[in-house]
Amino acid sequence: MRHLIAVDWGTSSLRGARLDDAGQVLEEKSALLGILNVPNGDFAGVFASLFSGWMKPAGTRCLISGMAGSRQGWAEAPYVACPAGPGDLVQQLHWIERGRIAIVPGLSDTQADVPDVMRGEEVQIFGAMRLAGLADGLFVLPGTHSKWATVRGGRVTGFRTYMTGEVYGLFGQHSILARTLDASASLDAAAFRRGAARAGNGEGLLHNAFGVRALALFGRLSPTESASYLSGLLIGEELGRQELPASGEVIVIGASALVARYALALGERGAKVRTFGAEATWAGLRALQA
Amino acid sequence: MRHLIAVDWGTSSLRGARLDDAGQVLEEKSALLGILNVPNGDFAGVFASLFSGWMKPAGTRCLISGMAGSRQGWAEAPYVACPAGPGDLVQQLHWIERGRIAIVPGLSDTQADVPDVMRGEEVQIFGAMRLAGLADGLFVLPGTHSKWATVRGGRVTGFRTYMTGEVYGLFGQHSILARTLDASASLDAAAFRRGAARAGNGEGLLHNAFGVRALALFGRLSPTESASYLSGLLIGEELGRQELPASGEVIVIGASALVARYALALGERGAKVRTFGAEATWAGLRALQA
Repeated sequence: MRHLIAVDWGTSSLRGARLDDAGQVLEEKSALLGILNVPNGDFAGVFASLFSGWMKPAGTRCLISGMAGSRQGWAEAPYVACPAGPGDLVQQLHWIERGRIAIVPGLSDTQADVPDVMRGEEVQIFGAMRLAGLADGLFVLPGTHSKWATVRGGRVTGFRTYMTGEVYGLFGQHSILARTLDASASLDAAAFRRGAARAGNGEGLLHNAFGVRALALFGRLSPTESASYLSGLLIGEELGRQELPASGEVIVIGASALVARYALALGERGAKVRTFGAEATWAGLRALQA
Repeated sequence: MRHLIAVDWGTSSLRGARLDDAGQVLEEKSALLGILNVPNGDFAGVFASLFSGWMKPAGTRCLISGMAGSRQGWAEAPYVACPAGPGDLVQQLHWIERGRIAIVPGLSDTQADVPDVMRGEEVQIFGAMRLAGLADGLFVLPGTHSKWATVRGGRVTGFRTYMTGEVYGLFGQHSILARTLDASASLDAAAFRRGAARAGNGEGLLHNAFGVRALALFGRLSPTESASYLSGLLIGEELGRQELPASGEVIVIGASALVARYALALGERGAKVRTFGAEATWAGLRALQA
């Protein structure tokens, strides 16, 4: 098998890894050069500055997942429609240099009235499937736009996006809640659980979010508690929309601090949680290597 | 009865009216001098600059409702707990000048686990009750923080706040949705109805809001439609939490453009809507005049 340079090129940042023939990570690098921060739109220049050294050995191939394949990215790689597995992505790689550098397309779910899309998460799902030895399951990728995906027979059959992380930022930075909320506070597990439990009251996020303000006015929620309570409210709202599989197993993929919060909230619902981090991306891109 | 100067002093702006002995509005004025825009916190100075002329006739009284009574306002007028009617507010007026200038307290609802609060809307409710000849009903006051209040026997028995207007602004100005949304577009009734209907799908606001982005990516929602669709999604989400009274009647109080949107969404649910504007504030303050 060829050497592989695996790159996850997102909106605000970029991560790359150099893998050996056995798929072991030899080296990693990251940069705040997400697609919105590429000077003069010179994607080829940024790529060369970061990875030309790694690309030198003959036969080296680079696969790039994430927003680099969006309309605002390096080159648009049209979405592959669900259900889709790794083989479908391989067939639709968008070659920047034939046989050498390719962009992996994202997935679309156009089965419902309103479509849904992902770019990058599909690779993480396929990587976690391989690492966990699973061909079926419920996968969640927490983040700015959290994704919940169902996998059957090794293919993503459908998924939904939730603006949970973005709304947390909007409320914590730009809304009236920001006045009594310390966004830099570390997790207060009790306040987080209290928020997650409240999300299930059927009164809706628009009302429950105002409760953060009202509780603060009455001295019943401190600024440090408020951030965790709001986080629980939002993640609880997201989780409340999911039907857990009969096995109770949920695979959570992402950065450890956020994964920990989802594991906490899922644990309260009795789910069995398996977690993966960046290794899922590298394993997923390797699974696509022809 | 004395002459009354009625003032609604809110967060970002202020409105005042001079009423004759029969409660007719003789003159109105407004200024962008909400409590957050009062130079050096000189509330007395702003009040004098706007209303000293109106206050001249002997025996003139001024009643001020709204955020002027909050901790950040002219003087804090502690919340009156529900259930509460006009008489309860009269007993707890906060006098700036005894017998001459008073701040009307807001209401709190501390009957549930999480408290709720309003300042100013209670006066509009009491005014609309008087204008409509109602002692019972369901009242909604759309806005940055919409209020839904239940009135029984002339008293507000409970209420809930929804951050609908604020979240519309956050999504339309600061979120990823802003990229494909023309916030200045006038109402597209069909797109609004489409959003309001979608809010009822049980998938939650965090997912449905992302649909605005996904529909735009697929060319199925234009920038001008997006603003109305998002508005429908949010107002639909808020309405979906309400149980309409057996009579089907809902009283909507507020600015006409926003009232029209609520009337449209309520109409789709088969509600009978009665609407009131600024006159509800003046009638409410008059109802409190000793």
